[in-house]
Amino acid sequence: MNSHRSWVQPFLTTKSLLPENQESPIEFIESDTVDSRLFYRRNHFLYPVFPFNSYWLPIGGAVTRSKLFSMDDLFRFPSKTIKIVLECAGNKRRLFNPKVYGEQWDKGAISQAVWKGVPLRILLESAGIKEGAKEVVVEGYDYGPRSDLNQVYPYARSLPLEKAMDSDTIIAYEFNGRPIPFQHGYPLRLIAPQWYAMASVKWIKHITVMDSEFSGPFQSIDYVYYPHKDNEKDARPVTEMNVNSTIQNPKDMDILNAGTHIINGIAWTGKGRITMVEVSLDKGHTWKQAEIQRHGSTEYSWVRWSYKWTAAERGEYKIMSRASDSFKRKQPSQPFWNRKGYGYNAVDHIKVKIE
Amino acid sequence: MNSHRSWVQPFLTTKSLLPENQESPIEFIESDTVDSRLFYRRNHFLYPVFPFNSYWLPIGGAVTRSKLFSMDDLFRFPSKTIKIVLECAGNKRRLFNPKVYGEQWDKGAISQAVWKGVPLRILLESAGIKEGAKEVVVEGYDYGPRSDLNQVYPYARSLPLEKAMDSDTIIAYEFNGRPIPFQHGYPLRLIAPQWYAMASVKWIKHITVMDSEFSGPFQSIDYVYYPHKDNEKDARPVTEMNVNSTIQNPKDMDILNAGTHIINGIAWTGKGRITMVEVSLDKGHTWKQAEIQRHGSTEYSWVRWSYKWTAAERGEYKIMSRASDSFKRKQPSQPFWNRKGYGYNAVDHIKVKIE
Repeated sequence: MNSHRSWVQPFLTTKSLLPENQESPIEFIESDTVDSRLFYRRNHFLYPVFPFNSYWLPIGGAVTRSKLFSMDDLFRFPSKTIKIVLECAGNKRRLFNPKVYGEQWDKGAISQAVWKGVPLRILLESAGIKEGAKEVVVEGYDYGPRSDLNQVYPYARSLPLEKAMDSDTIIAYEFNGRPIPFQHGYPLRLIAPQWYAMASVKWIKHITVMDSEFSGPFQSIDYVYYPHKDNEKDARPVTEMNVNSTIQNPKDMDILNAGTHIINGIAWTGKGRITMVEVSLDKGHTWKQAEIQRHGSTEYSWVRWSYKWTAAERGEYKIMSRASDSFKRKQPSQPFWNRKGYGYNAVDHIKVKIE
Repeated sequence: MNSHRSWVQPFLTTKSLLPENQESPIEFIESDTVDSRLFYRRNHFLYPVFPFNSYWLPIGGAVTRSKLFSMDDLFRFPSKTIKIVLECAGNKRRLFNPKVYGEQWDKGAISQAVWKGVPLRILLESAGIKEGAKEVVVEGYDYGPRSDLNQVYPYARSLPLEKAMDSDTIIAYEFNGRPIPFQHGYPLRLIAPQWYAMASVKWIKHITVMDSEFSGPFQSIDYVYYPHKDNEKDARPVTEMNVNSTIQNPKDMDILNAGTHIINGIAWTGKGRITMVEVSLDKGHTWKQAEIQRHGSTEYSWVRWSYKWTAAERGEYKIMSRASDSFKRKQPSQPFWNRKGYGYNAVDHIKVKIE
């Protein structure tokens, strides 16, 4: 694509620097994994400072014997390597209407990479889970003040025991075949496939098994769907990713020649697998099946899809894409509006003009 | 600002790669000149290939004697060094409503740099301008097909003789104290201060004095204000920049604490100089004067402005900025809509929430 000049390349799109929040140029991502230069960055606080040269991972709480693992200990356990989509729960927040406060993510708060690590289950079993254990809290080294509370908090999240024990929930130490880049959680990051990425805690400080419900602010205040503007009624936690798709080509508001064009993009889900992607060129009246390229796609990865469109007549067109998954979930025509702007997954659409 | 980690930095925002169109992260630009890493890039075609190691600049047409200048010839002429704003005529196109086709520039198709070169006037006078000369055409080495015409065109633009003879219209060979980066027109770029940047032709191939009106497509089709959607009535050429301002801080849809916040940004104009920047916090009912920092600003540069705002009460606020210039031009509350989306300069505004 960039053959005309090798230095013509896309960049992250800057949303904020303190903390660093930058999104992937998702419409220009053609590779199956995103390298750290273009992998989206989402932070709640400034980058942490900690002695990662003498790093130890403690596991405690409701366990038979507290453990302290060195990196070498972790390397000796059986490992698991998985290719997964990580998507910020706020991805596409900018598209909500009425608009929602907070980082105005466009469509690029999502990336894909291969992570390798130890299944969390192995570590928990080696520590011995006590009866009555309910959740596993993972706390990162990042911390700071919150604008709504007069206190400093670390970034910490819990997983229900069942999710923590899933054999694909891993304590990762590699990203695309190398040590995890510092921005993405070096030396250890929790990887919780299928959940929005707030669950995949970076720079792990310690792991605690709890026999009660964890109530940190990133669990009880943020990452909660609040369907109403002014009250907390019907609030429920953000967990697994919704079924979703994004059109990569053409670009929104492009002017194209009459003729044949390839419409393509990605589709992903947090439940089961993508079974169908449809494209509409008549504002949703009729839908045609796009071709799904499964080559290289795995259980937790996005799929690429494409549709060959012959635009014979001049005029303005709306191009829409809609993905469905094996749990019979389908992208809705309208997003589920919620006050904090999580989980946007309405049908994707762009407009083009044929000249 | 980035002291917490020196590698936390903003990037260009990618709009397209073929040709390369990327905008400056303008809200994060704190320096008075923008280096080539963050200077916006706007191309009509792929980057040109030409023998710039044996480069010569020809001047011909309605002149007494055609000339061929070497780079060394140019370096021997008196030089002029100017700090100027370059703004793409399509800057802020994304904000038009109804939406307009073409590259969806946000607020970052604008940058500032110091350019050094020979006044075009000196070169024209050395060639001898014939009586009846009307325009000076500058053609770049970049060329390619257009989607609306079945022909390949070079990028070329004319200046009226008067603008070409302005002592501040230069044939630049330096950008921020160094040879011009290839992306920005190496080895020579026309710099026409105060005009939208389509006039500042890159990679100059030749200069031609004309005794008639130039009608290339980048002059007769593009860079024309068409006020009506379906006809060419009242069309007029895009020339000098409109008076304009952009809020840099806070960011749109930020959530802030109650307390004092600095609202700041830049303001610029293509006619005279900025005389006033006002800020409104009540949807435009009342306006307060912002403080203008003239330190470092010059005749053609942007100015920085700031306003100290004490947000005592919780709630949602619209922050607006409005610049005025010495020709009594003031940003309008509504943009002048035109079919190709040029010259957007309505009052800038963002929203924030105080918690």
